[in-house]
Amino acid sequence: MKFLSSGESHGKALAGIIDDFPSGVNIDFSYINNELKRRQSGYGRGKRMDIEKDSLEVLSGVRHGETIGSPISFLIYNKDWENWKEKMAVEFSDSKAENTKDLKILNPRPGHADFAGYTKYRLDDIRNVIERSSARETAVRVAAGGFAKILLKNFNIFVYSFVTQIGEIELDFCDSYQELNEDIYLRAEESDLRCPDEKVTDNMKKEIDAAVKKGDTLGGKFVLFAKRIPVGLGSYSQWNRRLDAKIAHAIISIPAIKAVEIGNGVSSAKSSGINFHDEIFYSVEEGFYRKTNNAGGIEGGVTNGEDIIISAYMKPIPTTSAGLKTVNIKTKKNESSLKERSDTCAVPSASVVGEAMLAIVLADELQEKFGRDSLPEMLENYKNYCKYMKNI
Amino acid sequence: MKFLSSGESHGKALAGIIDDFPSGVNIDFSYINNELKRRQSGYGRGKRMDIEKDSLEVLSGVRHGETIGSPISFLIYNKDWENWKEKMAVEFSDSKAENTKDLKILNPRPGHADFAGYTKYRLDDIRNVIERSSARETAVRVAAGGFAKILLKNFNIFVYSFVTQIGEIELDFCDSYQELNEDIYLRAEESDLRCPDEKVTDNMKKEIDAAVKKGDTLGGKFVLFAKRIPVGLGSYSQWNRRLDAKIAHAIISIPAIKAVEIGNGVSSAKSSGINFHDEIFYSVEEGFYRKTNNAGGIEGGVTNGEDIIISAYMKPIPTTSAGLKTVNIKTKKNESSLKERSDTCAVPSASVVGEAMLAIVLADELQEKFGRDSLPEMLENYKNYCKYMKNI
Amino acid sequence: MKFLSSGESHGKALAGIIDDFPSGVNIDFSYINNELKRRQSGYGRGKRMDIEKDSLEVLSGVRHGETIGSPISFLIYNKDWENWKEKMAVEFSDSKAENTKDLKILNPRPGHADFAGYTKYRLDDIRNVIERSSARETAVRVAAGGFAKILLKNFNIFVYSFVTQIGEIELDFCDSYQELNEDIYLRAEESDLRCPDEKVTDNMKKEIDAAVKKGDTLGGKFVLFAKRIPVGLGSYSQWNRRLDAKIAHAIISIPAIKAVEIGNGVSSAKSSGINFHDEIFYSVEEGFYRKTNNAGGIEGGVTNGEDIIISAYMKPIPTTSAGLKTVNIKTKKNESSLKERSDTCAVPSASVVGEAMLAIVLADELQEKFGRDSLPEMLENYKNYCKYMKNI
Amino acid sequence: MKFLSSGESHGKALAGIIDDFPSGVNIDFSYINNELKRRQSGYGRGKRMDIEKDSLEVLSGVRHGETIGSPISFLIYNKDWENWKEKMAVEFSDSKAENTKDLKILNPRPGHADFAGYTKYRLDDIRNVIERSSARETAVRVAAGGFAKILLKNFNIFVYSFVTQIGEIELDFCDSYQELNEDIYLRAEESDLRCPDEKVTDNMKKEIDAAVKKGDTLGGKFVLFAKRIPVGLGSYSQWNRRLDAKIAHAIISIPAIKAVEIGNGVSSAKSSGINFHDEIFYSVEEGFYRKTNNAGGIEGGVTNGEDIIISAYMKPIPTTSAGLKTVNIKTKKNESSLKERSDTCAVPSASVVGEAMLAIVLADELQEKFGRDSLPEMLENYKNYCKYMKNI
Repeated sequence: MKFLSSGESHGKALAGIIDDFPSGVNIDFSYINNELKRRQSGYGRGKRMDIEKDSLEVLSGVRHGETIGSPISFLIYNKDWENWKEKMAVEFSDSKAENTKDLKILNPRPGHADFAGYTKYRLDDIRNVIERSSARETAVRVAAGGFAKILLKNFNIFVYSFVTQIGEIELDFCDSYQELNEDIYLRAEESDLRCPDEKVTDNMKKEIDAAVKKGDTLGGKFVLFAKRIPVGLGSYSQWNRRLDAKIAHAIISIPAIKAVEIGNGVSSAKSSGINFHDEIFYSVEEGFYRKTNNAGGIEGGVTNGEDIIISAYMKPIPTTSAGLKTVNIKTKKNESSLKERSDTCAVPSASVVGEAMLAIVLADELQEKFGRDSLPEMLENYKNYCKYMKNI
Repeated sequence: MKFLSSGESHGKALAGIIDDFPSGVNIDFSYINNELKRRQSGYGRGKRMDIEKDSLEVLSGVRHGETIGSPISFLIYNKDWENWKEKMAVEFSDSKAENTKDLKILNPRPGHADFAGYTKYRLDDIRNVIERSSARETAVRVAAGGFAKILLKNFNIFVYSFVTQIGEIELDFCDSYQELNEDIYLRAEESDLRCPDEKVTDNMKKEIDAAVKKGDTLGGKFVLFAKRIPVGLGSYSQWNRRLDAKIAHAIISIPAIKAVEIGNGVSSAKSSGINFHDEIFYSVEEGFYRKTNNAGGIEGGVTNGEDIIISAYMKPIPTTSAGLKTVNIKTKKNESSLKERSDTCAVPSASVVGEAMLAIVLADELQEKFGRDSLPEMLENYKNYCKYMKNI
Repeated sequence: MKFLSSGESHGKALAGIIDDFPSGVNIDFSYINNELKRRQSGYGRGKRMDIEKDSLEVLSGVRHGETIGSPISFLIYNKDWENWKEKMAVEFSDSKAENTKDLKILNPRPGHADFAGYTKYRLDDIRNVIERSSARETAVRVAAGGFAKILLKNFNIFVYSFVTQIGEIELDFCDSYQELNEDIYLRAEESDLRCPDEKVTDNMKKEIDAAVKKGDTLGGKFVLFAKRIPVGLGSYSQWNRRLDAKIAHAIISIPAIKAVEIGNGVSSAKSSGINFHDEIFYSVEEGFYRKTNNAGGIEGGVTNGEDIIISAYMKPIPTTSAGLKTVNIKTKKNESSLKERSDTCAVPSASVVGEAMLAIVLADELQEKFGRDSLPEMLENYKNYCKYMKNI
Repeated sequence: MKFLSSGESHGKALAGIIDDFPSGVNIDFSYINNELKRRQSGYGRGKRMDIEKDSLEVLSGVRHGETIGSPISFLIYNKDWENWKEKMAVEFSDSKAENTKDLKILNPRPGHADFAGYTKYRLDDIRNVIERSSARETAVRVAAGGFAKILLKNFNIFVYSFVTQIGEIELDFCDSYQELNEDIYLRAEESDLRCPDEKVTDNMKKEIDAAVKKGDTLGGKFVLFAKRIPVGLGSYSQWNRRLDAKIAHAIISIPAIKAVEIGNGVSSAKSSGINFHDEIFYSVEEGFYRKTNNAGGIEGGVTNGEDIIISAYMKPIPTTSAGLKTVNIKTKKNESSLKERSDTCAVPSASVVGEAMLAIVLADELQEKFGRDSLPEMLENYKNYCKYMKNI
């Protein structure tokens, strides 16, 4: 599967097209809508979330609840369009041009694409950058990821996430990732901040409250994991086909994510070979297995059958209500940056986007290995592979 | 530019092809050979380095020292081929099959692609995995990166690296990256470990000596930076065209790199918006500028004109002479992992590979923005752009 | 620019996304709607054309009439949706499943994707193939091509088409293509069959009338040409970057096109080198020029500055009202093929789709050579190039 | 599988890399060398063929005669390198620059990439274009195609070609393609011109002899066919995934091919629906089958299980010994085009290249449908599919 997203933050609708998705997959739309809702939740989100309540309208590729091998296209309407339809009108009209002339934004916000986008595309209004570089676009990713997750479920693969850090509050999380099971996920789902520990959640909320008071914003960290991944996705053969590289691409592409880590990647730098690498064991019941998973399920760019574990580091949201120093591009005078209605902390949302991006990469890799046309065919080929793996 | 690499670690030669490289670029082969040498250097490398002394043979794409718009192909011969030509013979012969039958490797090394590769490609000898998943392949990347760096130099863009951590020894490096200038690079070049601080280099060496004694290995961290990057490379418009995502892909694709960080990405997670984001200033002499560079030169997936700064975290080398627990794939009996002649620490080498990969991504992006056919045309278009930027 | 299309023939709407289209292009929506109308016109089209009257709804990528560098997404609604919304419902419901159970199509139409699609995607209803393999999908291409044509106009490049054959009626067209000017295009626009000769048009209509009577269908041939193409688009350097190959891909991808010809490609096979090749001349006024254009503007996979000329051969429409012999996939009994309401001849429509596909390929190539971000930047770079060409 | 080619016509060696080729395929190198020989054969080829006698040196990706999942790289040395090593030296030296200064070619040959390439890449010597745009490059394609053909054979798929036209001499070939069996291929192999009819071969030779006398050159036409193709390769779902479009891309990318035809594509334009489309029949022994194959095995962009049949139209070779009018790029004076030693007719060679390109496309599509990692896995998945097809 491949996907393209489109849509401005305050345009009429976001739109996405997924190409090359297998036929024969039953799609539960309420599941995908719930994914969209999960993206919109979280303590520390601004008021816009109340307006949006995203829901999916699928236009093609699914018939009577089942995919048919055609491209899947979908829309996510902007519920606030009525208030923006003049400012964001697609058509030119003299009156609109007149009315919006004075609304042009010329003071780029530090931390955003504003300055670079304005010059790259030779625009005359930073509004044109804001609208696309806004994280609102990630709703399309979550919808596409919803399709990917449904496909993965048919292979019994689950992709989860939880938040381990908001600002200076960190969850003291066991390095070996032995606790990684559905339980931790369920606890994360119950937390306003997708943090599996209630007490830490409370401290995180206090951290956010304090930031709100200061007109400040916060970043954080989340962990993604995928369970029951077959051995052999990705390849060490060519540099650009390594799975960890593709995942890093997908995760860093999420707005505000500034670092990505495979397994215990950051601490690996100070570890030693004897301590770090996951030794290999065998038992008749489990086959080949590991007792640790520092590698995060990927060795040499290929899945090794253990859980995939990815951490993502998110910078604080750039739009602060306290303002930041900037310069008007035209007048060259110092100004304070735009205080557009915004969130204080969006780490829980980003973790949901992270799940989507990881699911998309994995679904695509499954198709590379097991064929891409229909779910029944993929499952047959997958069974072949499992049989082969048993008799290795 | 796009490139494909090929070659087994102990095969006759590695080979690379660079496609879509501009014409009119003068190629200094000794510069690229020196890059290859830089990759092979470093305290903590094994004895194989003495054998190899890589040098480039260019077969096409360059004529009388200048690129001509044709694909550039090159070889890097294996100086030790004589000792491997039976084991790694391309052709089948009964005698070779007989002779090598007992040399099959069946105990996968933890931390390597061995287990996953053996099953993915349904092989019967882990040797076939080792040969390609070995970091020897990165010599091709460094050669391709040499071409990219030469192209970049024509735009006055320089890509550097230095090592900031080996095991537990860390260079206390100023977070704001204000010290990032050629000087730090020159000092890194003088160090056996590419570390710009002599004292820290000494401590790192001791760390390595200690690891050697224990039969252990070490990882570490290095920093890549690129100077004088034009504003506007990459795009926020579509998820897969973000420059930071492309860089993350390229860097994580380097063997043993388990985490990648844009600017102060890891510490951004605990920072706050007011403290983290790089405020924007203007002066007639400098134009728009920043006093800090926490973003590492990329905002919203697009370059903002500041230095690009990337950190990479490298796990310890998996092949330890002390051995690690593993299981024979056929017999299912416990064994100790292969102790193939190897290095104790390869962080300095990896940092040279990192330069190459970053240079390749940037060269490709320059071609996206300024055209791809010939250097004179690219430079003309680049000058147009600079003029536009001045009058913004 | 890249684009993905989506949508079922009788679904709620077709949708398209164009990615990486330059900013700063003024979009005249009525122009694109007129392109859609041109696709729907033509003597020999069925009644569905009356229903459809396609028009474009742009959702993103254009603001106040100008592109902003964001992906352009658009919808083309199905005006007949009300009559199909149960049969083509995206959601599953028991009642719908019950109601449509007996409507399953199981007799594949010869000449269509029906049989291959049914088996490839393991479907249980050929309706699911028909809906996507239908030529209705080409409306999205024409819309995307409309954007491409507008971009090309800014470089004074025009892409035209006209029909030269319907069934056995052929326009006797001068082989040297010296008549290829706007005049021929204007005359084509006035013809019901896009044929620049009135008398031939009349004969073609009679041919169509005769086919209608027999319950038969007709194919034909059309010519595409592009004027004022800069020298140097495409490349001989790598097999997959040749412009003629990319054009052939784009044109053969149009439903029912079974052959494609560059310049006088078909007759070139019986010509000789001395007669075929376009000799090179020079005058101060015209620079380098040719007196013939057998090559169709492309030599060695690269544009040579002459008009691009492409011919496309279209097979007769497979759905005949007389029916064709086929077999029910489930019962294996002989049946007659489906007589779904359809056209007798769609060559004029296909020629409009051909214009779109050629325009898209050329727009993409212009971006490869002159940069892709904004129209003003592309035009500056293009001017550089023109200056260079003058002083060659 | 993907491949990149490289190499100048008179450089030291051509080089190719095939990426993503399945493991477990036994490679018969003599088979591939024989393919290279087939490309070099044919009445009407110039003297260079005597020099070359291409043979393959494989550097990687194959071990002890079997592919191992790594990229396959190979060289084809230029046997005449000794005579070119100064003119085509990769390195700059003052003496070489001095010696070759007067050898610069400035009169572009009509019909070649010379003029366009010289300007596109801003070169100062057409030699730099000639060396890459020369058809010598197709040796790499034939080698890559040899690997693809070996893969296909494992699925019992064979790709053949034969020549049906040289200049005005045409083989009167049955339109329905019912004669397409191995026999026709064997007869083609015995002909100096790859024409399955002895008498027509003789006439073709006379045509060539006559052209030689006039200093002229000839083109022609060849037919490619592929037997025992599974149903369902390619897709109607997205414009760029249609198999006929991919094949057209691959075939038109062969130097001098100016038109490509799927099945009876050219004559389809004057046929009618009732006459053209291949009706569908069923018998217990054969399953679903056709009595005609006008579609050339592809309907709606997807294989339908019948033989794939492709025709390619080749223009006459542009380099004529009689010379053609051209203009010196620098002096602007009229000149006669270069009379570089060359061939009179290369249609038989081109047909061998056509086999290679078709085989490469089909091998890649097989991998898309049946997985890409190893031959045993692909065969298992293919068997699944055959079983499904039997019970459809």
